[in-house]
Amino acid sequence: MKVTVVRNVLDANDRIAEENRKLFDQHKIFVINLMSSPGAGKTSLVEQTIQALKDKYRIAVIEGDIQDTYDADRIAKLNIPVVQINTGGACHIDGNMIREALPAFDLSKTDLLIVENVGNLVCPAEFKIGENIKVMLLSTPEGADKPAKYPLMFQESSALLINKMDLLPYVNFDLEKARRDSSALNKNLKIFEVSCKTADGLDGWMAWLTQRIDEFKK
Amino acid sequence: MKVTVVRNVLDANDRIAEENRKLFDQHKIFVINLMSSPGAGKTSLVEQTIQALKDKYRIAVIEGDIQDTYDADRIAKLNIPVVQINTGGACHIDGNMIREALPAFDLSKTDLLIVENVGNLVCPAEFKIGENIKVMLLSTPEGADKPAKYPLMFQESSALLINKMDLLPYVNFDLEKARRDSSALNKNLKIFEVSCKTADGLDGWMAWLTQRIDEFKK
Repeated sequence: MKVTVVRNVLDANDRIAEENRKLFDQHKIFVINLMSSPGAGKTSLVEQTIQALKDKYRIAVIEGDIQDTYDADRIAKLNIPVVQINTGGACHIDGNMIREALPAFDLSKTDLLIVENVGNLVCPAEFKIGENIKVMLLSTPEGADKPAKYPLMFQESSALLINKMDLLPYVNFDLEKARRDSSALNKNLKIFEVSCKTADGLDGWMAWLTQRIDEFKK
Repeated sequence: MKVTVVRNVLDANDRIAEENRKLFDQHKIFVINLMSSPGAGKTSLVEQTIQALKDKYRIAVIEGDIQDTYDADRIAKLNIPVVQINTGGACHIDGNMIREALPAFDLSKTDLLIVENVGNLVCPAEFKIGENIKVMLLSTPEGADKPAKYPLMFQESSALLINKMDLLPYVNFDLEKARRDSSALNKNLKIFEVSCKTADGLDGWMAWLTQRIDEFKK
């Protein structure tokens, strides 16, 4: 018997991500792959985005966590269709996990799908899932050295939300360095300074996202 | 030709970790595998620990980062032998990376080796490196839901330092829940509430660590 060995896990994943993408295109669904360190504010951003845009778009959410349904429970309270993926130890979401989750949604009634990835500044950036854009958060308590130390996610993202700006007076965060190093890695990166707690600065994000979605759906 | 496939990466890693451990035992070197999310304060804890214990023990440090030498540069300023491992994309340090780094040290002149792992709350907990103990930080801005969402690291660690206690008035962090959920995962977990910025609470950590090292070296 010939043994077939899958030598390139990323290539295999990319093929599934492309199939997901075709399905999303058929239904004109704009998909965000949302990434950050643990506790940087992803779920809070999803909640704020739902509150701001739910009257304009039909939104669905996929929550990725190693275990539990904490985040999905938070989203379900907003009466938004949500599926929890439990990766069972894996530190990222991949294309196949998304494919497995999709039958739970009515794709014909979805405009925007937000996928909240596992909290991890490394691996999620390596695995495509069929998204239109990758979006990442960096929170001020994490420090301004993160672009230099974890460059791939900054390179892969279309937008960076610098979150927890309300904590800026209490932490050592060099905002200019964070902006400069992020832009050096990715000159097209759109940067927003926000607080998902106070909602400060989120208007710019909502306007930018709305424009991206409307262009896609045209 | 027969093709040999390494089917269990973790088993293969464990064997190298055991070899590292034998070498450390020969030289009576106490090894800490230090883990946390990005930006939780690992390097600050290493700096504080060096300052407090450098007259008592001969300390060496291995810094693990995907790229760059930011953290190793910080440690080198303290005149401590330090090696930077650049994982080149990998989200954790494994046993072989440590083995490759060891020739840079004079093991006969080392009492305590602190290995600062890549900032990641998931994968580092899965890979043994030959350590005596795993130690982790959780910083208050990350939120108290982390034990429930990333249980393995809490289960594997001997000590948990809840860091950035100075930010407690400004963040939504349920300290009691964090303590309760951590202890439920690991009843032997020693928990310290600290600020590596102000040094508050670090005395308890230093005393506990000193006792562990002295017991080992007896």
